[in-house]
Amino acid sequence: MRTIFWKDCVWLIDQTKLPEKEELIACRTVEELIGAIKRLSIRGAPALEAAGAYGVALAAFEREFSDVDEMKRYLVEKAKLLASARPTAVNLSVGVDRVLKKALEGESVEEIRKIALSEAEKVAEEDVERNKRIGENGAKLLEDNDVVLTFCNTGRLATVDWGTALGVVRSAVEQGKRIRVFACETRPLNQGSRLTCYELMKDQIDVTLITDSAVGIVMRKGLVNKVIVGADRIVRDGVFNKIGTYTVAITARYHGIPFYVAAPKSTFDLNKTEKDVEIEERSREELIFCGNKQLAPRDVKVYNPAFDFTPLSLVSAIITEEGILYPPYNF
Amino acid sequence: MRTIFWKDCVWLIDQTKLPEKEELIACRTVEELIGAIKRLSIRGAPALEAAGAYGVALAAFEREFSDVDEMKRYLVEKAKLLASARPTAVNLSVGVDRVLKKALEGESVEEIRKIALSEAEKVAEEDVERNKRIGENGAKLLEDNDVVLTFCNTGRLATVDWGTALGVVRSAVEQGKRIRVFACETRPLNQGSRLTCYELMKDQIDVTLITDSAVGIVMRKGLVNKVIVGADRIVRDGVFNKIGTYTVAITARYHGIPFYVAAPKSTFDLNKTEKDVEIEERSREELIFCGNKQLAPRDVKVYNPAFDFTPLSLVSAIITEEGILYPPYNF
Repeated sequence: MRTIFWKDCVWLIDQTKLPEKEELIACRTVEELIGAIKRLSIRGAPALEAAGAYGVALAAFEREFSDVDEMKRYLVEKAKLLASARPTAVNLSVGVDRVLKKALEGESVEEIRKIALSEAEKVAEEDVERNKRIGENGAKLLEDNDVVLTFCNTGRLATVDWGTALGVVRSAVEQGKRIRVFACETRPLNQGSRLTCYELMKDQIDVTLITDSAVGIVMRKGLVNKVIVGADRIVRDGVFNKIGTYTVAITARYHGIPFYVAAPKSTFDLNKTEKDVEIEERSREELIFCGNKQLAPRDVKVYNPAFDFTPLSLVSAIITEEGILYPPYNF
Repeated sequence: MRTIFWKDCVWLIDQTKLPEKEELIACRTVEELIGAIKRLSIRGAPALEAAGAYGVALAAFEREFSDVDEMKRYLVEKAKLLASARPTAVNLSVGVDRVLKKALEGESVEEIRKIALSEAEKVAEEDVERNKRIGENGAKLLEDNDVVLTFCNTGRLATVDWGTALGVVRSAVEQGKRIRVFACETRPLNQGSRLTCYELMKDQIDVTLITDSAVGIVMRKGLVNKVIVGADRIVRDGVFNKIGTYTVAITARYHGIPFYVAAPKSTFDLNKTEKDVEIEERSREELIFCGNKQLAPRDVKVYNPAFDFTPLSLVSAIITEEGILYPPYNF
């Protein structure tokens, strides 16, 4: 099942309920979709691009219009609201803008509806295809009986379907290879526990959950033989990804285990280097509370960066939809 | 304040309430003390040794006796119950046995009471003295303005007072050195968040809480320059300690940061090596739930080892009450 799809309206998997409950949300209006985006029922850059795209289609279908001009004004207005549902998520507005631009070329209400929906479906389809190409390329690096350690969630739930790093695992499994996965819980938001474990179990791919700090023992005992992670941004000298990725990379290097990064070309930002990127710091509350449980003194100082940087010297290969890049990386 | 002390009866800091509430529990009977031990209101090997010791004194004081023989029978019976309050905690029965043996030498009810209490106070006192010697020895390795990364809780709350790895920090601070600490939260039970942050803040030692997986970025950014951890068991080829210690040691080595272990000589078990020690695996629930929040699918496979092994090649020095050991470790 896709993370987001169209069937008379927009449907999406409510990720705030996972892993406790599997629920689909039907968004019949742009308002409802914006609410779902704001509540993080859907997240992950590629998935948000599709959400923005489908949102414009929803605007075209959600009511009747007396003429084309009225409809176009309405679409522009709703597009603006959609794009700002999460201001820092650039992918959301990429999806919105692409469908809006195309839809405004239409000359009748019916034509605009048709164009908007077909363009939105294209955005979603392209994401899946891109991920499948990443998967196929990456699967060449995996052998039968490999055990892959992964970090955070880079799967179906962060995209429309298939995933990036987890897409590589899925493609290898599809080719008949037996692949097992160790998923790090990924503190402080536990995307590994909540989402990666959930979606791999759903696909009947063998997954074992560990704490982030158990990476060392798992490698020392020879329980995993490859690492695949995603990327938030790839710059000229390394990879920005979820906090903890760097520690995993160092530990993999110490044990001589290959460390692979899987990401679409849109992640590359090669005019920048490590020092050009400021790492976002997130709320201290994320470490002080877990649900309603208080884990630390309320007034403790916290350092809670969202990402870290892994230098290319620790990266064994980068898997993209266009192929596999190896060191020395001549970007 | 000590983690456990005698004032008409046994008093202890209720660690199950930390960091939300600071509460002392008065245990007026052996039954109450056993309850507190079972509920983990007091934990940590050295602290449990003192709890066992004070427990025997409590048995001597908690009721009247018609004659000495009746009293001795009563002490033996209560000692057995105390020692089995946590069957795997060997230190508990060490404390119990030591005070019981001494008490049974007494020849009157009053003499036995006096002996039992004075021996229990000695057990507690010796723990504090040993920790202070570890602290003084270790403080030689710390310079003014050092920033120390630590893992788990090795402080006052795991001992009667002062602590081992945190004792080193305390001693350096007492000498007038400005020392700051980064505390790893220490998943899955968060002893770092709950206990280390609490006790350092209480002592007004500057502490910053991070996730275990942020060790890499903190070292890369030069935010810490030394690591000190405790040890559960030191064998001929390395150190068993809380799960995650090994990953920290590897990351420290990659950054050229010294990695120190602080532990009493009683931790050394030099007839054994890595392969002789089986690592305890703890409940899967610890990773699936946090308080009443469900973090992962209920039926997910979990690998949850309690400890890991760090080879001596990654250890820069071992600090004991007798001095500092350096590589090559000629045990």
